[in-house]
Amino acid sequence: MIISKKRLAHIVFESNDKASKTFDLALLVLIFASVIVAILDSVLELHLKYGEVFFILELAFTFLFTLEYILRVWLTSRTLKYVTSFYGIVDLLAILPVYLSFFIANTQLLSVIRALRLLRVIRILKLGRYLSEADFLRESLKASAAKIQIFLFSVLMIVLIMGTLMFVIEGPESGFTSIPVGMYWAIVTLTTVGFGDITPITPVGQLLASLIMLMGYAIIAVPTGIVSSEMARRRKTEDFHDHKSCTFCGFDRLDPNDNYCRKCGEKAG
Amino acid sequence: MIISKKRLAHIVFESNDKASKTFDLALLVLIFASVIVAILDSVLELHLKYGEVFFILELAFTFLFTLEYILRVWLTSRTLKYVTSFYGIVDLLAILPVYLSFFIANTQLLSVIRALRLLRVIRILKLGRYLSEADFLRESLKASAAKIQIFLFSVLMIVLIMGTLMFVIEGPESGFTSIPVGMYWAIVTLTTVGFGDITPITPVGQLLASLIMLMGYAIIAVPTGIVSSEMARRRKTEDFHDHKSCTFCGFDRLDPNDNYCRKCGEKAG
Amino acid sequence: MIISKKRLAHIVFESNDKASKTFDLALLVLIFASVIVAILDSVLELHLKYGEVFFILELAFTFLFTLEYILRVWLTSRTLKYVTSFYGIVDLLAILPVYLSFFIANTQLLSVIRALRLLRVIRILKLGRYLSEADFLRESLKASAAKIQIFLFSVLMIVLIMGTLMFVIEGPESGFTSIPVGMYWAIVTLTTVGFGDITPITPVGQLLASLIMLMGYAIIAVPTGIVSSEMARRRKTEDFHDHKSCTFCGFDRLDPNDNYCRKCGEKAG
Amino acid sequence: MIISKKRLAHIVFESNDKASKTFDLALLVLIFASVIVAILDSVLELHLKYGEVFFILELAFTFLFTLEYILRVWLTSRTLKYVTSFYGIVDLLAILPVYLSFFIANTQLLSVIRALRLLRVIRILKLGRYLSEADFLRESLKASAAKIQIFLFSVLMIVLIMGTLMFVIEGPESGFTSIPVGMYWAIVTLTTVGFGDITPITPVGQLLASLIMLMGYAIIAVPTGIVSSEMARRRKTEDFHDHKSCTFCGFDRLDPNDNYCRKCGEKAG
Repeated sequence: MIISKKRLAHIVFESNDKASKTFDLALLVLIFASVIVAILDSVLELHLKYGEVFFILELAFTFLFTLEYILRVWLTSRTLKYVTSFYGIVDLLAILPVYLSFFIANTQLLSVIRALRLLRVIRILKLGRYLSEADFLRESLKASAAKIQIFLFSVLMIVLIMGTLMFVIEGPESGFTSIPVGMYWAIVTLTTVGFGDITPITPVGQLLASLIMLMGYAIIAVPTGIVSSEMARRRKTEDFHDHKSCTFCGFDRLDPNDNYCRKCGEKAG
Repeated sequence: MIISKKRLAHIVFESNDKASKTFDLALLVLIFASVIVAILDSVLELHLKYGEVFFILELAFTFLFTLEYILRVWLTSRTLKYVTSFYGIVDLLAILPVYLSFFIANTQLLSVIRALRLLRVIRILKLGRYLSEADFLRESLKASAAKIQIFLFSVLMIVLIMGTLMFVIEGPESGFTSIPVGMYWAIVTLTTVGFGDITPITPVGQLLASLIMLMGYAIIAVPTGIVSSEMARRRKTEDFHDHKSCTFCGFDRLDPNDNYCRKCGEKAG
Repeated sequence: MIISKKRLAHIVFESNDKASKTFDLALLVLIFASVIVAILDSVLELHLKYGEVFFILELAFTFLFTLEYILRVWLTSRTLKYVTSFYGIVDLLAILPVYLSFFIANTQLLSVIRALRLLRVIRILKLGRYLSEADFLRESLKASAAKIQIFLFSVLMIVLIMGTLMFVIEGPESGFTSIPVGMYWAIVTLTTVGFGDITPITPVGQLLASLIMLMGYAIIAVPTGIVSSEMARRRKTEDFHDHKSCTFCGFDRLDPNDNYCRKCGEKAG
Repeated sequence: MIISKKRLAHIVFESNDKASKTFDLALLVLIFASVIVAILDSVLELHLKYGEVFFILELAFTFLFTLEYILRVWLTSRTLKYVTSFYGIVDLLAILPVYLSFFIANTQLLSVIRALRLLRVIRILKLGRYLSEADFLRESLKASAAKIQIFLFSVLMIVLIMGTLMFVIEGPESGFTSIPVGMYWAIVTLTTVGFGDITPITPVGQLLASLIMLMGYAIIAVPTGIVSSEMARRRKTEDFHDHKSCTFCGFDRLDPNDNYCRKCGEKAG
């Protein structure tokens, strides 16, 4: 069976027919399998028991990903652009760990790079059925970006001032050993995470902490409000664009399934 | 007092007259009572003190539920369909624990199955006064499902990458013993639960943790925004629906300021 | 200075002139003062140091509240109705602690009753400037009540099933000593409070906990969405009711500050 | 190079040409640098290692800020107004720490004052590109202020009553040593922070805690709903504003489908 280079390129880079979709699916399974192996390998008991199996699987995945990478470099018409693109770098990072492991002893650093493989999933999902939904979320967040930036800046100001105050009030005895630790605690508290690894013990500290918590409670409404109102506006615009116009009087707010214009009574086109 | 099989079937399966509503209510009380007994029986002190009373009650409940199950199987016109339906299986699970307890020694597994009895409540509530309200919530969530799926997928990507990074940065000394544990910690943190059983102790780890928390703070706005805007849209449509009807064709979704019916084209009253 | 009984009743029960407002304000200050004394008295160090001062203040407050209670009973035209009303009972509870302390030794129970005094604040605030705003919040919550009830019922179902599962999976070694404790933990987790007093230690338990947390993350959007969309609708209706109608053509969506009807161009009344 | 006093005043106080923008940027960098030095100096290890470097940098920053302060006092036309204004006081506080350190031994108090320097950033950011976005947030919060105040008052009532109840139920053995501590715990729980430093251990306490958590879960919807609906309304008004202007009187808030100007009554173009 001989496939032309052009056909192969289509299979590898596109995803609009059966062959290319199968290729994408196989790749998706491979990526998930390799990430799961990396996760399992990090568990000490499993590593001691199945470490060698994982290593062989890792070699196999790397071999296949290397093959795929070479294929992509060979098939693409603009090699340099692909190699330096975001996806090109992610694809390269996905195969490096094993090769690097011959030079680098730090296996933990390697496992980070291996986890980055999951980023490859984006490429494939990008072409999936959720495209427009993801766009909706992305656009909503983008439109709210400036407001969210100001919000985060205000939060950081509160965190700095509260972190410093708590450091001064509570001191090292309660675990507030420095301003950065105080700021870490302020973030933990303001975001309502509340680990409890550091907690105020003096009455003044607890009073200030209560203030920060109530503040965080009110503040959480802000990003939610920003995103909600942006989404509501966006959705309304979408609904609006679904409307059709009357061909007689031009009234432009007809439902797509209206039979007659509700302004002039003529049959709607 | 002799009741026809048809009348009995009506009482058991429907809930639109006094007899069938009484049957439903009695069943509801029975289900809640059996679940409460199961809960109380799990408390060691109560089990030691009242264990035998609970066992007798459990036998009584099982007898009644068995009777009800046999009744339903006998009364239904399509036995196989009922037995293999969701409610059929739930009804069967509700009576199995005691019978299984003669074969299985694992009493804890049995208590799970006993807790599943509460699922039976759904069937009865389904017919209650909250129907349309529950529909509203269900429809809103359904319509938002695709968006929420993408959202959860993005969250899992962040969790995987952050969990791996924290595992590498903090290491087993701080409790981050493996990538799965790191991912568990990342979920605990991103969702602002913050148990505090595992917490970062290195400055870099605390910095990264702060980032994750602020991220979680911003991210929580997304599902809220999705559901809020969906509900607002749905509610607007509902408001729209109570408007005037066409006096000719009876089409009931006209705007109060529509001049002509948009279905039949007649002048709207 | 002699004041008629009728005038006195006006001062005590109404709040629409200077004298009655002064009476309300004095009462407000008294209530807050008595609650603050009760709070401070609960702190052991302060009790040991100023216990006697607090007791004398408590006697003084009780004397004044008793006076006020007798006044209200005497002044009201419908004594029985007042005594058995919500406010009548709250007023009585506010003076009982000291009298009861001669019979009851349990000082902690008394401090609860003393805290209930704060409920009296509601009566006075009720008449304040925030009336319509509080109404807005109360009405929004009331209108959402049915939806929130279903929501809470669903949450309790999840809590029961998850609590039972965690009790079975984790067992007493991790602190999950019974189903009620498991349910307590499930509520702590689902609401993203996350005390960390009980945490899963088995991998399966941590996986299930992760699921619960992500669920809680998605679920929190529901009450927010319910209340947000209800408030948005209510606000829109309010905006709408501000509109005035044209006296010529009857067009009913004019802004109150429109000079001319924007439909027919006539001077708007 | 000689610059007139007037020109210098323009550079220092305005930010609408290249020279004044450069001045602002330099000041911004200086402020951030000084705050970062203060933060790093609070870390014991860094203080022991680089304490002297930090001290010299601190002197340099103080020298520059003093120079700037003198410049501002000299350049402003209304000296007294500037000195007593919010920014004048913040500017003065920014240079005091070093001078005070010759008299005051409490270095922690000084580090708080040094952290206040960040407040100076507001002045510069105020003039930045985010102005209108920040306005949007500020206005939304302001318009919601009355509702949020009532909300916070309700929360404090719940906190007082629940704190007292938990103090009575759990008592000092579980860490609930006084009503203020109980209130601190109630805030920690209601805001879903959940440190876990104090947790209920009795069944009744855990039941009440569960109620508080579910309450907090429902309550968090309220501020979110307030802010969301306010933002949605505000945004709609904004959308409304870009609509058409009257060609006669120039009134710029006409709906696109207004036939006549509602201000002057002329036919709208």
